[in-house]
Formats: sequence, structure tokens, C-alpha cells
Amino acid sequence: MASIDSLPNYRIAVVGSGAIGCYYGGKLAAGGRDVHFLMRSDYEHVKKHGLRVCTKGGDFRLQGVKCYRETEDIGPVDLVLIALKTTSNEALKELIPPLLHENTMLLTLQNGLGNEEFLAENFGAHRIMGGLCFVYINRTAPGEIVHIGEGRIGLGEYDPGDGTGGAPKERTHEVCWELERCGIVCSVVENLATERWRKLVWNIPFNGLSIAAGGIDTSRILENAELLALTRQLMHETIGIAKKLGHDIPMSFAEKMIDVTGPMGEYRPSSLIDFLEGREVEVEPIWGEPYRRGLEAGADVGRLQTLYRLLKHQMATRATG
Amino acid sequence: MASIDSLPNYRIAVVGSGAIGCYYGGKLAAGGRDVHFLMRSDYEHVKKHGLRVCTKGGDFRLQGVKCYRETEDIGPVDLVLIALKTTSNEALKELIPPLLHENTMLLTLQNGLGNEEFLAENFGAHRIMGGLCFVYINRTAPGEIVHIGEGRIGLGEYDPGDGTGGAPKERTHEVCWELERCGIVCSVVENLATERWRKLVWNIPFNGLSIAAGGIDTSRILENAELLALTRQLMHETIGIAKKLGHDIPMSFAEKMIDVTGPMGEYRPSSLIDFLEGREVEVEPIWGEPYRRGLEAGADVGRLQTLYRLLKHQMATRATG
Repeated sequence: MASIDSLPNYRIAVVGSGAIGCYYGGKLAAGGRDVHFLMRSDYEHVKKHGLRVCTKGGDFRLQGVKCYRETEDIGPVDLVLIALKTTSNEALKELIPPLLHENTMLLTLQNGLGNEEFLAENFGAHRIMGGLCFVYINRTAPGEIVHIGEGRIGLGEYDPGDGTGGAPKERTHEVCWELERCGIVCSVVENLATERWRKLVWNIPFNGLSIAAGGIDTSRILENAELLALTRQLMHETIGIAKKLGHDIPMSFAEKMIDVTGPMGEYRPSSLIDFLEGREVEVEPIWGEPYRRGLEAGADVGRLQTLYRLLKHQMATRATG
Repeated sequence: MASIDSLPNYRIAVVGSGAIGCYYGGKLAAGGRDVHFLMRSDYEHVKKHGLRVCTKGGDFRLQGVKCYRETEDIGPVDLVLIALKTTSNEALKELIPPLLHENTMLLTLQNGLGNEEFLAENFGAHRIMGGLCFVYINRTAPGEIVHIGEGRIGLGEYDPGDGTGGAPKERTHEVCWELERCGIVCSVVENLATERWRKLVWNIPFNGLSIAAGGIDTSRILENAELLALTRQLMHETIGIAKKLGHDIPMSFAEKMIDVTGPMGEYRPSSLIDFLEGREVEVEPIWGEPYRRGLEAGADVGRLQTLYRLLKHQMATRATG
């Protein structure tokens, strides 16, 4: 542990204890932080056996995890890590209030667009921060997380667009430092919304095509000339939409994103895993919301629109049989 | 039979004796025309049992069908109906020459874009005519065709774009009349290329989505809100491409095409049948060539491009396992 521990040691709640919540919450708890996990399906298991995180560098097991069935039992905290699947966002309306005091920060680690807005609307824009997680991780069993690679978080402030926020504050750097002290590579981003779009440049094609092209991993997307071309074109279109919305991402960023994907090997994007395991896929935040914002801004959205509709159809078909 | 039979009774060859070739060739032969069928897989069967066309109004059987294994055995004819799958177009380079005399007309009944151009390049633009077949038909067994509905042909002259052709000629009306006398509803179209684009407005979304959305018929495309929206958007994009290329199709044509599809019931587009039965799908003439022409013309092609690439990937995946 770092010796300079003069900063506030936050009381932290983790809402949504899937792979992301358990991994980051687990790192914070292992770093001696006061972390309280809301657990549902894994409650009994984690209460008894703790959390286990398997990494390439070795596994760590966390015993005596503070877990709860209700946020009422956690009570007010300083920081909430929100790692719930976005498809369950409605539940946050009931889960969050018991965790709030006047200055409680809500840090969403969720995918795609629209989550900060949802939280701001329900709990006040001043509380909201966003973290972009670059991590390849899987929940393999109750309380068991396999960490495949990366782990970096880009941390930023929500910009409600009324001039009151968006730029990093003192607290942004404090939270960043808190995460870093527990071994999480973290950096403060100047513009959270721009970073979200940068992440979408990767997620839109790779998460989308991995499902739409029949359930394939990223290596198979890269090795097929048509899908690689389409990936590139979806990336360019996404950058075009972002530009129209005022986010300056260079077109060359697409090539960079393709280059980093090869070394990831036979990587299965989170949406593909959700799809293959019969869970709901986060269609709206990753494809629906970006498509609608692009459309409204008058950007070229044809490829994204096509992918979005095909995915939505695929989900509907699966749901009804 | 009509009594006014003063017009030339053409010597006719049918190249490509699948559903389309057998249906139209069969109608002409049943109408007493001198029709010579090039047959491969169905040769023995048709030689022995003739052709059978099942229609709602009753079946007709054609005995003593003139069929051949080689076009050399047919020799020169006045009119060639080309109904080969476009994926086998290369074979025409050897199949067509034995059928030609100085004025032999080549009438392609094939799908999509690029067939007239291919024939013109190899056999001379002056010979080339195109027929747009609006027919719902299936080959159910060797020599056996089931006619589900329609049967209309839109007949036009190929326009090489150098001012020498495109407008209907005397021969266009003659061929039209020849078909009509045999009970085929036929009309001369002023602009064949425009009509091809009008047909693509239907084929691009319905043939494409029936495959890309997992092997579903037109009724299932119409009943899914996402796929219906995407159909409409693909239609609008197709009309936009056509406009850029100088073909004046009103945007309202999309709605008309959607309206005619409902009454077709659980219709399986020809490409879907090809796909489901493991045969090659005509990806290039229906999606590839329209996409490339649109791209070159600077039209919005995002949806078509996405669909094209997904279909091409799907074909490649199927071919390699």
C-alpha cells in the first residue's frame, strides 16, 4: 500500500456485481478500501467463499467480502460504482436512493451512450461521473472473475451541456488517485463524451458484427475481407457521427483500433458473450442511442442503422423463440 | 392461338433451363413456337417425360420437348432466352457463339445489374435486350415447375450509353408480341436500366434481408418492426442511388413495393431459396454491382454496403464450412 494516505478513504458501494463490478470492486477491497457489494444471485456464494479473481500474473482471493442483498443495508456512501447491465437501468431508480448523502458521487462504468444522462435525470447532474473501462474480463462462476487483459479506466465528469460541468474537478483527480492506489490503471479524461465515442469506434463494429455475422470472435472478423472492410467503414461512419456532434476524433483512429485488435486474438466482445449465453444484449446504448444522435445531427448513419436494426431483430427473434 | 400470325415465327433457344427458362420457354413451346432447350441435369428426365408446369389455374404438360446437351446441336437461332444463374455467366462465352447468326437477339432474363453489359462486351451491344421477369415460380423436381403467381415481363433494349441504343425498336415490339401470343403478359419498357433499378428496389431489401435476418420469408420481414423499417430505408437508399444515376423513381415507389408484398404471403425470394438449398446466391448482380455503381456516383450507399458485405461474408463462411 502507498504510504501517503492523507486523502479521504471513501466509503464505496458497488451496484451490479457482474464481471466489471466484482473486478474493480475487488481491486479496491483488496487495496484495503471500504467496499460494499450489492449482490443478488452470487450473494450466498460470495458470503461463504469470497471473491476470486484469476489473472495471468496469479490469482487473488478476497475473503470477508461485505455483501448485501439490499442497498438499504449498505446506507449512504461517498462513491457508488455502477456496473449494472444497462438493460436493467430502470432498477437503479430504487437501488440508488438509499446510498445517497449530499455529496455522493455516482460513477457509471457502464457501456455506451445514455447512462450518465439517465443518472443525471434521476439523481442530479452534479453527482455524475463516468468511467470507460478498457478491460477484457469474464465472470466464469459465482464470485469468480477471470481477468484476460488490460484494466485501464478513463475517468471523467458528466457534461450536462449547460455550462455547469464536463471539465475535470478536484474530485475527479481524487477518485482517480483512489483507484490508482489500489492498482487500477486510471487516468482523468478531459472530455468524457469524446472518450465514449472513441470507445464506440471499437464497440460498434466489433461487438455488432460478432453477433450479426453469426456469433464469431474478433479474429474471425479480422480475417474475413468483407467484415474487415465493413468494420473499417463502420468505424469511419462512427467517427463521422462523433465529428458532427463536436467530438474531434481523427479518421486515422480507425486504423489504430483495428491494429490493437489483432493482438487480442480470439477475443469475444462482451455483447457476443451476452448473446451466446442467452442474456440481454445492450443494443440501445451501443447502437441505438449513437444511431439516434447521429440521425438527429444529420450525420451519415446508414451502416450503423442497418446493423442496429439487424441486431434488434435478432434479439426480438431470439426472445420470442 | 391468335389468328394473325404474319410476324416471324422465331427459332428460339433457351439457355439455362431452371425455373425461369423452363417456364417462359415452356409457355412459348406450348404456344407452338420453335423452342430449343439447352439442358444439363434435367436432360434425361425431360427427354423422356417432358416438362410439367403446375399453375393455380391447372397444370400443363409439354411432351416432345426439343432438348439438347450442347448449343452446337441447336445451331443458329433468331432469339436466345438467357436464364442461366448469373453466377455461371462465364460459361456463356462458350455456350452462346454456336447459337448466333448475324441478327440473333440475346434476351437476358437474369437478375440484377451487369448482365447486359457482360453480353454486350462479348457478343456485341446491338444484339442485347433485357427482360424483367415478375414471376413467383419454383423448380420443384427435374422438368417440373410450380408457378405461384404473376408472370409479367418488362422488355427493353440495352443502352450502351453511346447514343446508339436504349429506345425500343421495331424488334422490341415484335418480341413482345411473340411472347404475348403465347400467353405471357409482356410490355415494352422505354428505359430498361430504369426498370432494372425499380426491380432492385424490391430485390435489394427483400432478397437480402430474407438471408441476412436468418432465413425468413417476406411475411416475417413485414411483421417485424425493425426489418420493415430497414426495408423502407434500403428502398429509399436504392431509389437515391438510382436517382444519382439518372433514373427518376419517386420516393413513394418504396411504399408501393411494400404494399404489394403483403398479399404475396409467406413468399420466399429466389435468393433465399438458393441460400437454403445450398446453391450460390447472386450477390454481385443484386447487391455488389448496385453498391459499386452507387459508390462511384457519390450516392449514399451505407445500408446497401452493409448488407452486401454481410451477405458476402455469409456466403464465404458457408462455402468454407
